[in-house]
Amino acid sequence: MIRVGVCGFGYWGPNLCRNFAVNPGFRVTAISDRREAARAKAASLGSDIRLYEEAHDLVDDPNVDAVVVATPAASHFDLARRALARFKHVLVEKPMCVSAEEGAELVALADRVRRVLMVDHTYVFHGAVRKIEELMRTGALGAVSYFDSLRVNLGLFQPDMNVLWDLAPHDFSILDHLFGEEPDEIEATGHCHVNPVHPDIAYITMHFPSSMIAHFSLSWMSPVKVRRIAIGGANQMVVWDDLNQEEKLKIYDSGIEFQPEDERSVIVPAYRIGDVHSPRIPPGEPLAAIIGHFGNVIAGRETSRLDGHHGLRVVRMLEKTQAVLNANLAARDQRRAPPASSVASR
Amino acid sequence: MIRVGVCGFGYWGPNLCRNFAVNPGFRVTAISDRREAARAKAASLGSDIRLYEEAHDLVDDPNVDAVVVATPAASHFDLARRALARFKHVLVEKPMCVSAEEGAELVALADRVRRVLMVDHTYVFHGAVRKIEELMRTGALGAVSYFDSLRVNLGLFQPDMNVLWDLAPHDFSILDHLFGEEPDEIEATGHCHVNPVHPDIAYITMHFPSSMIAHFSLSWMSPVKVRRIAIGGANQMVVWDDLNQEEKLKIYDSGIEFQPEDERSVIVPAYRIGDVHSPRIPPGEPLAAIIGHFGNVIAGRETSRLDGHHGLRVVRMLEKTQAVLNANLAARDQRRAPPASSVASR
Amino acid sequence: MIRVGVCGFGYWGPNLCRNFAVNPGFRVTAISDRREAARAKAASLGSDIRLYEEAHDLVDDPNVDAVVVATPAASHFDLARRALARFKHVLVEKPMCVSAEEGAELVALADRVRRVLMVDHTYVFHGAVRKIEELMRTGALGAVSYFDSLRVNLGLFQPDMNVLWDLAPHDFSILDHLFGEEPDEIEATGHCHVNPVHPDIAYITMHFPSSMIAHFSLSWMSPVKVRRIAIGGANQMVVWDDLNQEEKLKIYDSGIEFQPEDERSVIVPAYRIGDVHSPRIPPGEPLAAIIGHFGNVIAGRETSRLDGHHGLRVVRMLEKTQAVLNANLAARDQRRAPPASSVASR
Amino acid sequence: MIRVGVCGFGYWGPNLCRNFAVNPGFRVTAISDRREAARAKAASLGSDIRLYEEAHDLVDDPNVDAVVVATPAASHFDLARRALARFKHVLVEKPMCVSAEEGAELVALADRVRRVLMVDHTYVFHGAVRKIEELMRTGALGAVSYFDSLRVNLGLFQPDMNVLWDLAPHDFSILDHLFGEEPDEIEATGHCHVNPVHPDIAYITMHFPSSMIAHFSLSWMSPVKVRRIAIGGANQMVVWDDLNQEEKLKIYDSGIEFQPEDERSVIVPAYRIGDVHSPRIPPGEPLAAIIGHFGNVIAGRETSRLDGHHGLRVVRMLEKTQAVLNANLAARDQRRAPPASSVASR
Repeated sequence: MIRVGVCGFGYWGPNLCRNFAVNPGFRVTAISDRREAARAKAASLGSDIRLYEEAHDLVDDPNVDAVVVATPAASHFDLARRALARFKHVLVEKPMCVSAEEGAELVALADRVRRVLMVDHTYVFHGAVRKIEELMRTGALGAVSYFDSLRVNLGLFQPDMNVLWDLAPHDFSILDHLFGEEPDEIEATGHCHVNPVHPDIAYITMHFPSSMIAHFSLSWMSPVKVRRIAIGGANQMVVWDDLNQEEKLKIYDSGIEFQPEDERSVIVPAYRIGDVHSPRIPPGEPLAAIIGHFGNVIAGRETSRLDGHHGLRVVRMLEKTQAVLNANLAARDQRRAPPASSVASR
Repeated sequence: MIRVGVCGFGYWGPNLCRNFAVNPGFRVTAISDRREAARAKAASLGSDIRLYEEAHDLVDDPNVDAVVVATPAASHFDLARRALARFKHVLVEKPMCVSAEEGAELVALADRVRRVLMVDHTYVFHGAVRKIEELMRTGALGAVSYFDSLRVNLGLFQPDMNVLWDLAPHDFSILDHLFGEEPDEIEATGHCHVNPVHPDIAYITMHFPSSMIAHFSLSWMSPVKVRRIAIGGANQMVVWDDLNQEEKLKIYDSGIEFQPEDERSVIVPAYRIGDVHSPRIPPGEPLAAIIGHFGNVIAGRETSRLDGHHGLRVVRMLEKTQAVLNANLAARDQRRAPPASSVASR
Repeated sequence: MIRVGVCGFGYWGPNLCRNFAVNPGFRVTAISDRREAARAKAASLGSDIRLYEEAHDLVDDPNVDAVVVATPAASHFDLARRALARFKHVLVEKPMCVSAEEGAELVALADRVRRVLMVDHTYVFHGAVRKIEELMRTGALGAVSYFDSLRVNLGLFQPDMNVLWDLAPHDFSILDHLFGEEPDEIEATGHCHVNPVHPDIAYITMHFPSSMIAHFSLSWMSPVKVRRIAIGGANQMVVWDDLNQEEKLKIYDSGIEFQPEDERSVIVPAYRIGDVHSPRIPPGEPLAAIIGHFGNVIAGRETSRLDGHHGLRVVRMLEKTQAVLNANLAARDQRRAPPASSVASR
Repeated sequence: MIRVGVCGFGYWGPNLCRNFAVNPGFRVTAISDRREAARAKAASLGSDIRLYEEAHDLVDDPNVDAVVVATPAASHFDLARRALARFKHVLVEKPMCVSAEEGAELVALADRVRRVLMVDHTYVFHGAVRKIEELMRTGALGAVSYFDSLRVNLGLFQPDMNVLWDLAPHDFSILDHLFGEEPDEIEATGHCHVNPVHPDIAYITMHFPSSMIAHFSLSWMSPVKVRRIAIGGANQMVVWDDLNQEEKLKIYDSGIEFQPEDERSVIVPAYRIGDVHSPRIPPGEPLAAIIGHFGNVIAGRETSRLDGHHGLRVVRMLEKTQAVLNANLAARDQRRAPPASSVASR
């Protein structure tokens, strides 16, 4: 029975506790949150749960064997490091931390203390991703030439966050998990509507050694929520609409085939617009699967699918993309800046 | 009664003829197409229609007062110029031509011979665009900060065409018509799956002096057809899904409003996720409206909403975007090219 | 080359002419309509088409080999009989006529004069119906236990028509074509909002000897158009949404399987909520296929799938259902009528 | 602080506990379930919750002030009566009980002991119903002429239940709540696929004194889940699709208007197919609202919207409908039964 302490009882904390509660291998023994209201809510989960105002105190609690870090991103590194240093297993919410340097230190520390460091990249355990893995493994999909993600909604604006770090971790972890390839070129542009230094719209394009292209359209400014990923293989194409309750994943048997040009000298591809197949995605909450996996990895029954190395690669992609984005925004600002003289003349 | 000659009876020709047939102001008197099968099909429209193999001969036919150019893009300039030179009115399919230089010459010629030069940018007459114009005029929308278009399908690959020139004319004409603003910066990247020199996927981002950002996601490699344009205004946001038969246009009363940060130091915007309103879009085929407009402009009853200047601006945007796209692709090829030595050693 | 005369150039006439025009086996030589505006529109189809005000005169035209009856239902019998009597082939719009007695006479007459009598029950040639036939033939569907149709829209109210005769012919022809079974019991109820003697909402339930149950929900009072047919087989279930452009037909591998009761004494059926498969429905307009079929049957190349016997069975089902509906409405009126005395006392 | 005991920890029990847990006015102090696994699950909610195998014992527990009856329908009456007899407030899951006689006794008992008897007809607290109430109150909807419900899914077959008692309580409570009118005529037919005595498909039509017609299409045999209610008013029509996450409720400004007949003697109604308006439905779980209401009614702060009288009317409609359905099925069986002789001859 692993005793779990949950740092942060905001949006995600209650989901974590609900899922730990039904897993016989774990028991939530402590919860921390700076907000009194959040602690009051946590209290309703049971009188035997210790409540802390400061996450540090929870991490230090000897009755906690594993720490879940569900606080704002900026504090992930500090808490995860402290927990590992006290020989506790750690499950960190995405993103694992806010720099590759931090990430590398966490990975090294976890190795040294021989404790489990896991990142909660939920989608890696999503039935749709598992189905896509299967299509890749069996060769049904064929060589993938593009990955296109549309991930938009009306955003929760946070001064310490931009749309890239909020939404892209999902896409990057899916991409890394499915292809295990790092891009050899990243293009990024965007727009700041609300917070002058944090883009709320970002368009990212990545080019990979395998010649696959990936595009990410991220926005906090969309009136409708969209979660749509299209993956194009040589044999089949897949569209995953995560908000479609009935048919999340659709598989199209519609690769392109070449044909001799007709007189109008047009390559008419045999579209092979064939049938559409929508495999059943077993319901089950990914979070429950991740918690089960966390327990199995701690017990040595499974090797981690979401270890620190995976988390680190995702953070590295975020960091690199952020750098390109910053350069792009800075260049535009400069181009648009009035000449010094005119400024002086004001 | 204006006597119309239609050059090209492929995909669009029949639609043109059908719409001219029901417009009392016009009569189709001639049709040209190099393909015998196409001419046979044209013959079924009536025994009184003269059929030509060569478009040039149709243009020269004295019984033709107005020429519709529905041939492949490369021939638009030549045919339109020839028709204008013979003092005939011209309606050209999109794109008007394949270079700004050609476009400028056509515009100048049309002015000189005092004939109507119109481009068939169908969407400008689409009920949805007219509704959006109204929302802008009345101020309901508010200052527009982004324009985002997703225009994808399985493409008809043509050696003399790429996805940009096939799909972007629609978006660029809508953009030019609604905002009348030319971008001060264009970013473009893409991918060539099928034809090594013609991208079949293109991602374009434009930045405008008004600080509006526009993004275009174009693909011939998508298994599903999508025609979705989102426009974000300060007061309202609009999503136009042209494939939604029942509710093409949805208006969201969901601008962002700022609020004091709460203790968790999060700017929680009052999403104002309000009601969704879907105004009725009168059915009516845009093409019928354009043909009516063409007649009215010829008769001097209306001033053109689709004149050569508009067509030229669209071609100029296409040309500039193509240049950026070419540079981007070339740079990548070079980066990936093996060093000369290794080439030599082969 | 069969010379066709089309009676009635209202809503459906133009579609008929368009499809005959592209079929090399036919030529439309005459069109009739009482409305001058309709004739003017017809004139635009070609100067070589004879126009008639009276359908009778068109039927009598010696240059007409085959007559298409696209006038209001009440006149179908008279025109079809007249055409057959003049040894002309006949294609009648649905319903074939307005009584089984009329229908039987037309069938007998067609046999006697050895001419083709065909009813335009378009859906029988719809790709979805053909796919369902295939699923039945191969046994994939299994024994069908229910047929459920939701066919509603905002109606075009006609004093000589009710919602049953307007919408049910589609369902009844599909049902007859797929199952060739006549119901041994019909239940029908409805409501009259607009025209006191013609229901604009009707609910019909049929029970068949095979123990299949069929239900039809018909309405002219729905703000949204719905065309949805669900068919439940022992092995698979099918839902045909005719307004879904992308996936008209969905096949669910989700029959019921019994299991031992669990302690809560609940039969938990293994839902077998399996994958959803949406076979490609070849585009092609059914009307074009029917016209091709009409030509082939006239030429003796095919035996009719839409002959008078089929049309008669559909009319008989309509007539029987109408009788039940009338009785149901009458009974309710009577129940609600005030007692004679109270009427007298007014 | 009201101490709550929950009888039955199957499908709905956990949802009840979760919602009581976050309501400061209540505390769940006891849970009963005959199944050990269910009790084990309940134990995870907190060590301070007393667990019972027998619901009776929970009802008798002096530390329980209010009893929630979430056991199978057959036991509702016995448990609710026992709880009221011990002067405890009662919240019963739908249906309140299985006969009007039982219902009347519970209502009388609740009055006598002055305790709150409430039925958990969740939908009455659904944002969509509240919006429809508003449209009725303001007259925006106009006189309602029809109510049409399509409520189908793949069912959980229970030997002590049929599709009517499983699904219709939702519709009947919505109907009673909105219109407070009892039908003066009920028609019902159906089909038994799985359990020979319990229909799994039922079609019900009700006629009301106000001349409104209501139809309910209920099925446990549908491969797809549908929850769709259409309500037709003289001025507006409403379609509530409860599975549409984004736009549950759509309001159509599309009443029928009469016009003079045109020459073709067709009443062309001005469809007024106007705009579609989708008001925002505040998220919030109805169950949370019902529990809040339960607390307020107990405290005398609100009068009950879901009292025993409402529950009784719903049960009465179920009972009457069941009687009609039984007669309908019996009549068909008899018609189909072989004549006695033939039986003898076997």
